[in-house]
Amino acid sequence: MAGRYRHSAAAKAGASPGTLVHIGEQKLERVFLTVIDYDADAVTPHQDINMAAALTCCDGPRNTWLNVDGIHDTAVIARIGEHFKIHPLTQEDILHTAQRPKLESFDHYLYIVLPMLRYLPEEARVISEQVSLILTDRVLISFQESTGDVFTPVRERLQKNRGRIRGSGCDYLAYALVDAVVDHYFVILEQIGTRIDELEEQTIDNPKPEILHRLHALKREVIGLRKRIWPLREVIAALARQDSTLIHRETAIFFRDVHDHTIQVMDTIESYRDLLAGVLELHLSTISNRMSEVMKTLTIIATIFIPLTFIAGVYGMNFRVMPELEWRWGYGFALGIMGLTALGLLVYFKKKGWF
Amino acid sequence: MAGRYRHSAAAKAGASPGTLVHIGEQKLERVFLTVIDYDADAVTPHQDINMAAALTCCDGPRNTWLNVDGIHDTAVIARIGEHFKIHPLTQEDILHTAQRPKLESFDHYLYIVLPMLRYLPEEARVISEQVSLILTDRVLISFQESTGDVFTPVRERLQKNRGRIRGSGCDYLAYALVDAVVDHYFVILEQIGTRIDELEEQTIDNPKPEILHRLHALKREVIGLRKRIWPLREVIAALARQDSTLIHRETAIFFRDVHDHTIQVMDTIESYRDLLAGVLELHLSTISNRMSEVMKTLTIIATIFIPLTFIAGVYGMNFRVMPELEWRWGYGFALGIMGLTALGLLVYFKKKGWF
Amino acid sequence: MAGRYRHSAAAKAGASPGTLVHIGEQKLERVFLTVIDYDADAVTPHQDINMAAALTCCDGPRNTWLNVDGIHDTAVIARIGEHFKIHPLTQEDILHTAQRPKLESFDHYLYIVLPMLRYLPEEARVISEQVSLILTDRVLISFQESTGDVFTPVRERLQKNRGRIRGSGCDYLAYALVDAVVDHYFVILEQIGTRIDELEEQTIDNPKPEILHRLHALKREVIGLRKRIWPLREVIAALARQDSTLIHRETAIFFRDVHDHTIQVMDTIESYRDLLAGVLELHLSTISNRMSEVMKTLTIIATIFIPLTFIAGVYGMNFRVMPELEWRWGYGFALGIMGLTALGLLVYFKKKGWF
Amino acid sequence: MAGRYRHSAAAKAGASPGTLVHIGEQKLERVFLTVIDYDADAVTPHQDINMAAALTCCDGPRNTWLNVDGIHDTAVIARIGEHFKIHPLTQEDILHTAQRPKLESFDHYLYIVLPMLRYLPEEARVISEQVSLILTDRVLISFQESTGDVFTPVRERLQKNRGRIRGSGCDYLAYALVDAVVDHYFVILEQIGTRIDELEEQTIDNPKPEILHRLHALKREVIGLRKRIWPLREVIAALARQDSTLIHRETAIFFRDVHDHTIQVMDTIESYRDLLAGVLELHLSTISNRMSEVMKTLTIIATIFIPLTFIAGVYGMNFRVMPELEWRWGYGFALGIMGLTALGLLVYFKKKGWF
Amino acid sequence: MAGRYRHSAAAKAGASPGTLVHIGEQKLERVFLTVIDYDADAVTPHQDINMAAALTCCDGPRNTWLNVDGIHDTAVIARIGEHFKIHPLTQEDILHTAQRPKLESFDHYLYIVLPMLRYLPEEARVISEQVSLILTDRVLISFQESTGDVFTPVRERLQKNRGRIRGSGCDYLAYALVDAVVDHYFVILEQIGTRIDELEEQTIDNPKPEILHRLHALKREVIGLRKRIWPLREVIAALARQDSTLIHRETAIFFRDVHDHTIQVMDTIESYRDLLAGVLELHLSTISNRMSEVMKTLTIIATIFIPLTFIAGVYGMNFRVMPELEWRWGYGFALGIMGLTALGLLVYFKKKGWF
Ligand SMILES: [Mg+2]
Ligand SMILES: [Mg+2]
Ligand SMILES: [Mg+2]
Ligand SMILES: [Mg+2]
Ligand SMILES: [Mg+2]
Ligand SMILES: [Mg+2]
Ligand SMILES: [Mg+2]
Ligand SMILES: [Mg+2]
Ligand SMILES: [Mg+2]
Ligand SMILES: [Mg+2]
Ligand SMILES: [Mg+2]
Ligand SMILES: [Mg+2]
Ligand SMILES: [Mg+2]
Ligand SMILES: [Mg+2]
Ligand SMILES: [Mg+2]
Ligand SMILES: [Mg+2]
Ligand SMILES: [Mg+2]
Ligand SMILES: [Mg+2]
Ligand SMILES: [Mg+2]
Ligand SMILES: [Mg+2]
Ligand SMILES: [Mg+2]
Ligand SMILES: [Mg+2]
Ligand SMILES: [Mg+2]
Ligand SMILES: [Mg+2]
Ligand SMILES: [Mg+2]
Ligand SMILES: [Mg+2]
Ligand SMILES: [Mg+2]
Ligand SMILES: [Mg+2]
Ligand SMILES: [Mg+2]
Ligand SMILES: [Mg+2]
Ligand SMILES: [Mg+2]
Repeated sequence: MAGRYRHSAAAKAGASPGTLVHIGEQKLERVFLTVIDYDADAVTPHQDINMAAALTCCDGPRNTWLNVDGIHDTAVIARIGEHFKIHPLTQEDILHTAQRPKLESFDHYLYIVLPMLRYLPEEARVISEQVSLILTDRVLISFQESTGDVFTPVRERLQKNRGRIRGSGCDYLAYALVDAVVDHYFVILEQIGTRIDELEEQTIDNPKPEILHRLHALKREVIGLRKRIWPLREVIAALARQDSTLIHRETAIFFRDVHDHTIQVMDTIESYRDLLAGVLELHLSTISNRMSEVMKTLTIIATIFIPLTFIAGVYGMNFRVMPELEWRWGYGFALGIMGLTALGLLVYFKKKGWF
Repeated sequence: MAGRYRHSAAAKAGASPGTLVHIGEQKLERVFLTVIDYDADAVTPHQDINMAAALTCCDGPRNTWLNVDGIHDTAVIARIGEHFKIHPLTQEDILHTAQRPKLESFDHYLYIVLPMLRYLPEEARVISEQVSLILTDRVLISFQESTGDVFTPVRERLQKNRGRIRGSGCDYLAYALVDAVVDHYFVILEQIGTRIDELEEQTIDNPKPEILHRLHALKREVIGLRKRIWPLREVIAALARQDSTLIHRETAIFFRDVHDHTIQVMDTIESYRDLLAGVLELHLSTISNRMSEVMKTLTIIATIFIPLTFIAGVYGMNFRVMPELEWRWGYGFALGIMGLTALGLLVYFKKKGWF
Repeated sequence: MAGRYRHSAAAKAGASPGTLVHIGEQKLERVFLTVIDYDADAVTPHQDINMAAALTCCDGPRNTWLNVDGIHDTAVIARIGEHFKIHPLTQEDILHTAQRPKLESFDHYLYIVLPMLRYLPEEARVISEQVSLILTDRVLISFQESTGDVFTPVRERLQKNRGRIRGSGCDYLAYALVDAVVDHYFVILEQIGTRIDELEEQTIDNPKPEILHRLHALKREVIGLRKRIWPLREVIAALARQDSTLIHRETAIFFRDVHDHTIQVMDTIESYRDLLAGVLELHLSTISNRMSEVMKTLTIIATIFIPLTFIAGVYGMNFRVMPELEWRWGYGFALGIMGLTALGLLVYFKKKGWF
Repeated sequence: MAGRYRHSAAAKAGASPGTLVHIGEQKLERVFLTVIDYDADAVTPHQDINMAAALTCCDGPRNTWLNVDGIHDTAVIARIGEHFKIHPLTQEDILHTAQRPKLESFDHYLYIVLPMLRYLPEEARVISEQVSLILTDRVLISFQESTGDVFTPVRERLQKNRGRIRGSGCDYLAYALVDAVVDHYFVILEQIGTRIDELEEQTIDNPKPEILHRLHALKREVIGLRKRIWPLREVIAALARQDSTLIHRETAIFFRDVHDHTIQVMDTIESYRDLLAGVLELHLSTISNRMSEVMKTLTIIATIFIPLTFIAGVYGMNFRVMPELEWRWGYGFALGIMGLTALGLLVYFKKKGWF
Repeated sequence: MAGRYRHSAAAKAGASPGTLVHIGEQKLERVFLTVIDYDADAVTPHQDINMAAALTCCDGPRNTWLNVDGIHDTAVIARIGEHFKIHPLTQEDILHTAQRPKLESFDHYLYIVLPMLRYLPEEARVISEQVSLILTDRVLISFQESTGDVFTPVRERLQKNRGRIRGSGCDYLAYALVDAVVDHYFVILEQIGTRIDELEEQTIDNPKPEILHRLHALKREVIGLRKRIWPLREVIAALARQDSTLIHRETAIFFRDVHDHTIQVMDTIESYRDLLAGVLELHLSTISNRMSEVMKTLTIIATIFIPLTFIAGVYGMNFRVMPELEWRWGYGFALGIMGLTALGLLVYFKKKGWF
């Protein structure tokens, strides 16, 4: 289980920096390039274009979004890196999945990396991918681990010229992509919220031991999510502070809005931690209450019968001379003593409030 | 239960920023506009005015407080937004309930959002609403989710010209509204304090298991309150620092006073957390003391009788040759041994301080 | 119990700021004014002076300490406030008890509020009062909730011209009062320390359940003290930083010394928390050790007799054909088996180290 | 066990600063010097060179990496210290193992110290060594406790002129060494991750008590690792901030990359702490579940038989007059009552959901 | 026990600041003055000199170290205070033991106070003393509570002209004293480390309840040490930052080295806390494991015999008609049933993995 946190970079220890080695799972057969060339007047999408054509588009006068699906082919990254003069360390980072969210500012480009989470309802499963963004003056390059993303609404807005996206620069496009990623965190959080609700209900209805395991698993998931998203706040705060000239003043206001959303995401995650801790406490105390109820009732039953059995034992002794045994009402007398003993104990326990 | 923290914004993931969609529960049939036009000399209230007339008032030379009850009608927000040149992102925020308290500064207006809590004694229930304030030079616009608020004393002060409110600008009016909201937190806190007192008394008198559930519920409520109010401190500190030219120096001193109150609110909430933790500890240790008292007494009873029953069993054996059985005082001898054994055990337990 | 943290300001929610309403318990029949007029050459005390005469003294050329015992009479505060041009919010704060320690700087005066704790040995009880100080250039006004304070040594130093107090300004007098308040915290802490020692001894000697309640009560008291004194550090640090021109450089050094003492107070409180936590842990583990000792001994006794009773039961069966019963030494044989069984079990338990 | 944290410097208490005493274990017979002299055009390695020759190389015009294996010989350190004008305190620090990672800036050199961890798979053991780096303009000196290190790939890159290492200055060489050290932390972390996985599996399969000991040992190891690596973040951040003129701008970008990796290391360590805490909780609750299952089942069995034994005891009494004993179906009647009692108890327990 | 944290200053509450009252235990009969007058060329020690002669040395041209053993005689402090124009508050602080470490900067002197800990091996006991240092341009005055200190190596270095001490100013001497004090903390820490090791071993070998008490005592000791040394870090950091002109640049580097050591001390103390927490956890879980093993084994034994005893009870009933009793092999049959029952239960428990 710890494996998912393991940094496979171990295998590359001591290698020259900028040595392009893909670290992570290969998720695609080959690399797919997609280009959307746009300005306020027109938009030209190119599906599955070849490298040369893609770079030509990028060099054109219009804003260009170059999306790369698949990062296992180091040659592709190297070619793009060379064309846009991307620092070898950035190229290395694009190839390494398991990056924490970060923003790195270079002279002529910004490098943003953040985790993209998608919930697939049909499979009831969360898909996680690392998205790297290179923002230059006229071009935005996005690198994904495999096909499929949360950017469909952004493509539609470009296509149908909705909002200010077509009329704005590539920094606004970068905002739109980051915003789409952060918006999808809420979808993931909703799933988790539903699962917490279910576990709470089950805990109240029927606190089985396996709920404990599921609570621990969910808690670990929430902690993992928190760890991965936490550094994003500072990344987006830096974008909103407009530290780089590549981000325009109007766009910075939009990043401030996303920053707001990341804080809400973190708030929700914190609430979930508290909620889970509460359900856990509730579960443990319910279990413990039940156990002590069991022990109490059983012990009471046992304790009442122990003195009675003793009395029966006394009159089962075989002494030759035992006057009570000869009495006419000896048996009734013995039963009477037993009854009174039981009653006395019951009254005493009742008085002490033990049941 | 987790649902109340869930961000329904999930449904809007990827939409263009500034897309006006109301996120939250619709609480009113239609939108109600109320205007209070005032200066040092006169005050003119307009109940349930139409939009055009309201905007005319706002454009007039006097200070204007435009209150909007109901935020589900995006057209209304858009109209006001257009008139006052409110940034699309601000409009979006007004429509989204579940915002955390924040202050956003734009060139010509301030945007403040904070939670308004009201206790309805007849229903023994807390009503929570999001209040958004737009402060411009001459106009204060307040947006509420539904009718009913904590601002009645402010309206009276305007009407009856009490204090400095009529003679001051809209920034002072904004202060008065924020102050009224914060003042009402104390009412909510008093309710919670009363409930903690009750639970503490019940814990001492009769520590039933259901108190645990109520303590957990109350703790969660207090944590929820803390989460919602916590960011308000920084919001009001920023207002008191007079970062914006829309806040005058004299008004900043008043915001410093509210800041003081929010710190007191947080202090009280922290105290409540400590008190609840204390009651919880007390409850658990009382329960555990009772349980161990039960176990101890019962075990002592049982243990005393077990050796006695053994002795009875010995003399209930059917061996042909058992000299004691033939003795004249055999029975008395057996009872004597039993009595001595019981006494010995009691003395031993007493000596060990077990009861 | 939570009541003591409750902010009675709830009743004043929404009122105009500066509305003078006394919030707290009225502790005196009427207000007492005391004036000490002094300079390096002479000192003139006035006990229970009337308002007009007091204000005349204040306006005189010498340094004046005006002490007000009783803050329930809003007219008195208003009169003083008007004379010294004290901001309505400050007047309001003077009237509200349950303020946290704070320092507020206005153009012509400083406002300091802090809790004064006095231990009355004859009543074995701590008296807590809020003290507000208004420091202007030539006048120091102190507001107390009721008569009786910790300032007697300061009055004596003024009277008998000890130290530099008579030759210094009102800022030094303010220091002397704050120092006297902080010095008395150590007296309170000594009391608490003694009680912790007692509880620790009792826990070691005889860990009764009621000690738990007393430990919790003491812990709550220490936490309450910590909450009330904690903000004082920053208040006094600000005075020592000499942020205001009303504090002279030489006096700032003295405030640095008081700051040192508040840090020591906080250190001691932290130590007490640790000590209490330690005693609590010790208590719980001692209780738990005793309980498990009880359970263990009793269970051992019970377990040894259960097999013996079984053997007795076997030879108490009424089968027609049971050869052992007819044996000459059958009874001795049975007793022998029982003895060996008991011995075997004892040896086994001993070997396992169970007793 | 605490011994490994013990600072043997105790033995040197009060000695003059700069007194060269080796504190730590002597790991080598003698000191080995290795020199690599290089520039963009050529590289000249010298294995096991003598001191005079080594210093001559250092004074030559090319970049020089002088590696010192073995720090027990204070004369060697003193000779080098004198040659390069290294401050006596730095010389002292080189000799003291158990330094925390730090960076100290002097006029003409930087001093960096950090722990080098190596995993030896054949021995399943981690080797830990302190590495000190002295970076001057043209020379990099590295001090190790013994032979063997993680720098082999760096030496190969120098030898085979891979990457920019030959063409860059000694600051880049320092980066390469620090990077190699940090890269190897991931190898160590992978080992720990594997062990956590194993313990988690064993906890789920068969939660033996000895797992607790191993979990505690692993937790301590992780905490120890965290303590040793934690300060490294700030050291490398300072290098990346390019506070010293000895670090060129291009190299600073590379240190930013290593900084990134140290943060990832810390993240992973934090994850491991959470994971271990989770496994621990899981273990404890599994153990406790098992125990309470044992207690419950056994108590149920016992409780059902206790009333039955009582009934048997009643009919084992020797009263002369006991009508049931004479009945034809008395025995059946008694067995019937026993059966019904057992059934009744079983139904009751079942209803309460106790099994 | 809390007494040792109690501030006896309570007795002085409200006194004029600078009132010289010794607060603490008087540890010496009279005050001893020792002077070491030195420069690069010569050193002149004076043992047990009188005040006038001591002050004459101080006024001489050479550097002077004036050591004062015993601070109970306020006249001595006042005399020195007057001669060197030491602020009354500083004089007061010198007289008050139980100061937290601090550095106070005055126009013409620095005041440093820190705790000096010495381990006396022959008495297996730690001696703790407060050391106050007054550093002026040409004189260093050290105040100790009683004779005996950790400065012997420093005196030897002065005497034998080792290192740079004779050639440097009084600031270097101050460094040497502070360094000696900090160096001795490691000696104390070694003792504690040894005791932790011992307790850990005993916990693993034989977890007796009294180990709990010793662990708590040791934990309290470590926490106390941490509290006392913690503020020293900032004191020495300030000295290393060379905030005062009384500290020369070359000496500041040496203070940086001591700062390093205080951080190591704090690191070690933190490690000890972790180690102690670990041993505590280990102890508690070992105790709990043993207890549950006891309960389990005993309950298993008891439970097996309870059904057997029931069967014996059945055949001990006195019904006239009980066919089995008349059987030839009835007794054997009953024993057989008992054996099978016991076997069945054993198999069932084994299967469940209960032993
Ligand atoms: Mg590398
Ligand atoms: Mg990398
Ligand atoms: Mg994942
Ligand atoms: Mg994808
Ligand atoms: Mg968004
Ligand atoms: Mg928004
Ligand atoms: Mg139990
Ligand atoms: Mg959006
Ligand atoms: Mg929004
Ligand atoms: Mg609510
Ligand atoms: Mg409303
Ligand atoms: Mg208010
Ligand atoms: Mg106020
Ligand atoms: Mg108000
Ligand atoms: Mg107030
Ligand atoms: Mg109080
Ligand atoms: Mg008073
Ligand atoms: Mg004082
Ligand atoms: Mg002082
Ligand atoms: Mg030294
Ligand atoms: Mg050292
Ligand atoms: Mg190690
Ligand atoms: Mg090595
Ligand atoms: Mg690396
Ligand atoms: Mg990288
Ligand atoms: Mg004083
Ligand atoms: Mg003092
Ligand atoms: Mg001494
Ligand atoms: Mg040292
Ligand atoms: Mg000590
Ligand atoms: Mg050093």
